[in-house]
Amino acid sequence: MDTSNLSRRRFLELVGAAGGSTAIYQTSRAMGLLQDTGPVAKLDLQGVGAAGKKIAVLGAGIAGLTVAYELERAGYEVTVLEASHRIGGRNMTLRHGDLIDEMGHNRVCNFDDDPDLYFNPGPARIPGHHKRILHYCKKLGIELQVKANFARHAYTHESGHFGGNPVRKSEYFADAQGFMSELLYKAVDKNRFDEPLSVEDRERMLLFAKRIGDLQPDGTYHGTARAGYESGGFIKPGTHKKTMDFSALLQSRHWESAFDNIHNPEWAEPLMEAVGGMDNISKGLAKRIRSPILTNAQVQSLQNTETGVDVVYNHNGERKKLSADWCFNSIPVHFMVGIPNNFPKDYNEGFAAVRPDNFFKIGLQMKERFWEREGIYGGITHTDQKINQIWYPSHGIHRQKGVVLSAYAFGREQSAFFERMSPEDRIKYAGACGDNIHAGYSSYIEAGVSVPWGRMNHMMGCGIVWTPEKMEKYYKRMRAPEGRHYMIGDQISYHPTWQEGAFASAEYALLDFDKHIRAESAVSRKG
Amino acid sequence: MDTSNLSRRRFLELVGAAGGSTAIYQTSRAMGLLQDTGPVAKLDLQGVGAAGKKIAVLGAGIAGLTVAYELERAGYEVTVLEASHRIGGRNMTLRHGDLIDEMGHNRVCNFDDDPDLYFNPGPARIPGHHKRILHYCKKLGIELQVKANFARHAYTHESGHFGGNPVRKSEYFADAQGFMSELLYKAVDKNRFDEPLSVEDRERMLLFAKRIGDLQPDGTYHGTARAGYESGGFIKPGTHKKTMDFSALLQSRHWESAFDNIHNPEWAEPLMEAVGGMDNISKGLAKRIRSPILTNAQVQSLQNTETGVDVVYNHNGERKKLSADWCFNSIPVHFMVGIPNNFPKDYNEGFAAVRPDNFFKIGLQMKERFWEREGIYGGITHTDQKINQIWYPSHGIHRQKGVVLSAYAFGREQSAFFERMSPEDRIKYAGACGDNIHAGYSSYIEAGVSVPWGRMNHMMGCGIVWTPEKMEKYYKRMRAPEGRHYMIGDQISYHPTWQEGAFASAEYALLDFDKHIRAESAVSRKG
Ligand SMILES: Cc1cc2nc3c(=O)[nH]c(=O)nc-3n(C[C@H](O)[C@H](O)[C@H](O)COP(=O)(O)OP(=O)(O)OC[C@H]3O[C@@H](n4cnc5c(N)ncnc54)[C@H](O)[C@@H]3O)c2cc1C
Ligand SMILES: Cc1cc2nc3c(=O)[nH]c(=O)nc-3n(C[C@H](O)[C@H](O)[C@H](O)COP(=O)(O)OP(=O)(O)OC[C@H]3O[C@@H](n4cnc5c(N)ncnc54)[C@H](O)[C@@H]3O)c2cc1C
Repeated sequence: MDTSNLSRRRFLELVGAAGGSTAIYQTSRAMGLLQDTGPVAKLDLQGVGAAGKKIAVLGAGIAGLTVAYELERAGYEVTVLEASHRIGGRNMTLRHGDLIDEMGHNRVCNFDDDPDLYFNPGPARIPGHHKRILHYCKKLGIELQVKANFARHAYTHESGHFGGNPVRKSEYFADAQGFMSELLYKAVDKNRFDEPLSVEDRERMLLFAKRIGDLQPDGTYHGTARAGYESGGFIKPGTHKKTMDFSALLQSRHWESAFDNIHNPEWAEPLMEAVGGMDNISKGLAKRIRSPILTNAQVQSLQNTETGVDVVYNHNGERKKLSADWCFNSIPVHFMVGIPNNFPKDYNEGFAAVRPDNFFKIGLQMKERFWEREGIYGGITHTDQKINQIWYPSHGIHRQKGVVLSAYAFGREQSAFFERMSPEDRIKYAGACGDNIHAGYSSYIEAGVSVPWGRMNHMMGCGIVWTPEKMEKYYKRMRAPEGRHYMIGDQISYHPTWQEGAFASAEYALLDFDKHIRAESAVSRKG
Repeated sequence: MDTSNLSRRRFLELVGAAGGSTAIYQTSRAMGLLQDTGPVAKLDLQGVGAAGKKIAVLGAGIAGLTVAYELERAGYEVTVLEASHRIGGRNMTLRHGDLIDEMGHNRVCNFDDDPDLYFNPGPARIPGHHKRILHYCKKLGIELQVKANFARHAYTHESGHFGGNPVRKSEYFADAQGFMSELLYKAVDKNRFDEPLSVEDRERMLLFAKRIGDLQPDGTYHGTARAGYESGGFIKPGTHKKTMDFSALLQSRHWESAFDNIHNPEWAEPLMEAVGGMDNISKGLAKRIRSPILTNAQVQSLQNTETGVDVVYNHNGERKKLSADWCFNSIPVHFMVGIPNNFPKDYNEGFAAVRPDNFFKIGLQMKERFWEREGIYGGITHTDQKINQIWYPSHGIHRQKGVVLSAYAFGREQSAFFERMSPEDRIKYAGACGDNIHAGYSSYIEAGVSVPWGRMNHMMGCGIVWTPEKMEKYYKRMRAPEGRHYMIGDQISYHPTWQEGAFASAEYALLDFDKHIRAESAVSRKG
């Protein structure tokens, strides 16, 4: 009978006493092999080919604008058709006076007229390995700044735990790591494997456990300065906080997602944001495009022809037609089902198969930056209330006012809860939830906006919920061109809610397009 | 015989099955009890008392300037005497043309003349719970921004591990947590306690282990997206990195300090810095002081008199005397040993008992921000080379050039290694170390500065190394005034290398001073 707590075999496998795997490991990771999502492609576009120069770009979000920008520079005649009154798509920032185009609830952002008081209802974070968006920001001179995403001074709040009181993340994490590492320490200390661990392995493992959790010399956990001081610390010696109750911690639910939140590469510190609002990215692209970008131009039908694509659209109430040689289409695929076309059945089946995902955000203008008095200078408080999260701005430190993200619902169900409310009620609701975390929270609210992506005109959702089977079945199909028509957008990337996916889809389509052009021009040179 | 790996008693203690402690815990932490280093004192200074209004402040660092600022506002006649050619003390920023006043190596900072290219050889980080420094920054309108301190994309580098190649922190941490949590999982899974765990506790513990390390459903660790992708991720499905070798990880030394670096409250994300350079804090204080701040004014003797303190100083070569009613002295205590005075023996013993600590930094102007091409936008690479750390700037993202901290030695021994070199050799040395981490590192170096605090005139060290015995013996004594002479500075706080300690010492002295003034004026009212 195996009396070990973890099998000796697996431990040896892990600790790899033989050392051989170390050697393999070391030789396989020469410097420079530390790559991630692949380098940005050099878009050495061929220029206008024999197949015509007229390009229709449908949708003026990140993907559409990127294609327009690149093809214009390669010499094409580009027209961008955008259904909304504004460009940018989900790349949106709300400021004083901006229209919030929610179905049935058109309204205007009532923030103060101050460039510092803005809200990003869509994209708000850029990680350092999203090479394409970073490449374009650099190229176009769009200023970026660090955005504090994780803050140890922010709270975790669970209505049914810790007396319903918010707990500093510093404390929560210090204790979680402490208790855990004590358990680990004991497990290693008793050394009950079939064959005992080598003295050296055991020593290192014990030290490892100690350092992870900041244990006492005897391997027990009795609190740590990591949790923050209860009092003192500068003029008086600091007093550690008492440890939380492990049972209480274990029963709480924050850790179920917290470790992933911290370690997820998409949220890897430091994150960045565009200075002054994320929409400076789409605006920065648009500023460098001289071709017409028509807003209020909703595409209503698409016909592939022998030599291109005929696009019928409604521009400010007038029906128009654009006969293009090529078409790049970022219209949300769930809308494509309703847009008459002559595409083959399997292509259309892809459109019908997907289901839009959904998100919801509220931004509140607060008349005082009360969170800074609590030592919070950015980052996120997590709560089990329906608002999910509170984000504190990390720009504009110490100014009078600030805009706080006061609800962030994920997915269709969570979003629907808020969508059913009136805009006023959403703000009241978020205020009441905030009161359970910060005393007086709702009394600081001066103005507020809510953006339910599932009810925003020309959007009615955000990204796609793929099942693995559907992904397998329709993904390749949707990314391959149909005649001279390309689908683009984050919707056809493996990251349906990251701008990097939109940029990557544009790059992918442009490279494929260029291959066609080069092949054609080779043929026409021969002919 | 106890066959458990961790004793049932301690486990129950940890998991607290009784639940009683939860209740205690919950009631003891009402909202608002989440305090840390105590609130900033309301400095409601009494104003000039019967004991005279002439104040001598010795040293124009953070502590001295704070005292001068507050007492001037309370109506006192303040003179600040500063030995150096500049104010600020260790609060220093180097820019184009600045003098580096190193003993025997006076030289000028050769960075480009560009406000973005600066280096903070002293303080560089402010955490959100340092309430005093944040209070003054807010009050004086000194702009702050987030400083990325931890970056998952930065590296850990150990010459004798992982083939000497740098390893991304994301990967290192993901695997460390993964392997560790697998061990924890097994320990709990086998459930070999005297009495078995309750079904519920066991289930939660298993889930806990899984979530900490992102384990497979069976509790084994086989890599995670947290480590970053090997390739793909947007247009192609992402491929996880292969896990590191656990033995290699365990033998490496980064984790011995890494977990503390991350969880230490003093480095709690998000950290902040003054926009444009940390010396904007001392400059911001000085700008609001109308009283004379004499530079090149070195204090040479101190005599307590019946009614105050006589300060003899050398001002630009001239011997002068200032007869003050009160004196606030931030001169490094290791200099006080050499400054003739008539203080009692035990006070002087305190000066002699302390030993200055030491630090050393190098800042290099790089002609390209090559680190951004590696996905690094701030944060720190740790290495076991003598340079210890490389810091990447998180301001000025995507500009052409940037200043990188290229060595940060801690303590006297590490610093001495660099102090012995010529300024040119230090830079060459740092460049060679950098080459082991970033290909071509030294080829980007355009200019460089090194600041050995132990050799900087009027400083010759930084902070104090206290032994617990000496702290016990001399600490209180040094903080109590001697007649009308107060010692101030971070040197008498429990955080000898944090500006918050300097601010706290000023606050402490001012409150004590105010108590005296109030007592005196009560006496004189009566008299
Ligand atoms: C709540 C939320 C949070 C997010 N967070 C982040 C983040 O932190 N970081 C990040 O990088 N990304 C984030 N994203 C994702 C990011 O917004 C998207 O990946 C990106 O903006 C998608 O760009 P796109 O061009 O592919 O699509 P879209 O921006 O959706 O563009 C499609 C365009 O087509 C237009 N259109 C619709 N119908 C028609 C029609 N019939 N005719 C003409 N035009 C039409 C639409 O008006 C729209 O402008 C977030 C998104 C949301 C909603
Ligand atoms: C490498 C390094 C890193 C640091 N990092 C941080 C950080 O990230 N965050 C942070 O908050 N803090 C940091 N600190 C600590 C911070 O710099 C100090 O806590 C703070 O600046 C101390 O201020 P002070 O007024 O107490 O002393 P000082 O600044 O040392 O002031 C003493 C003054 O006395 C003057 N003087 C000396 N002799 C005489 C004399 N005979 N007559 C007259 N004047 C004299 C000196 O020139 C000096 O100006 C760091 C320090 C160093 C060196």
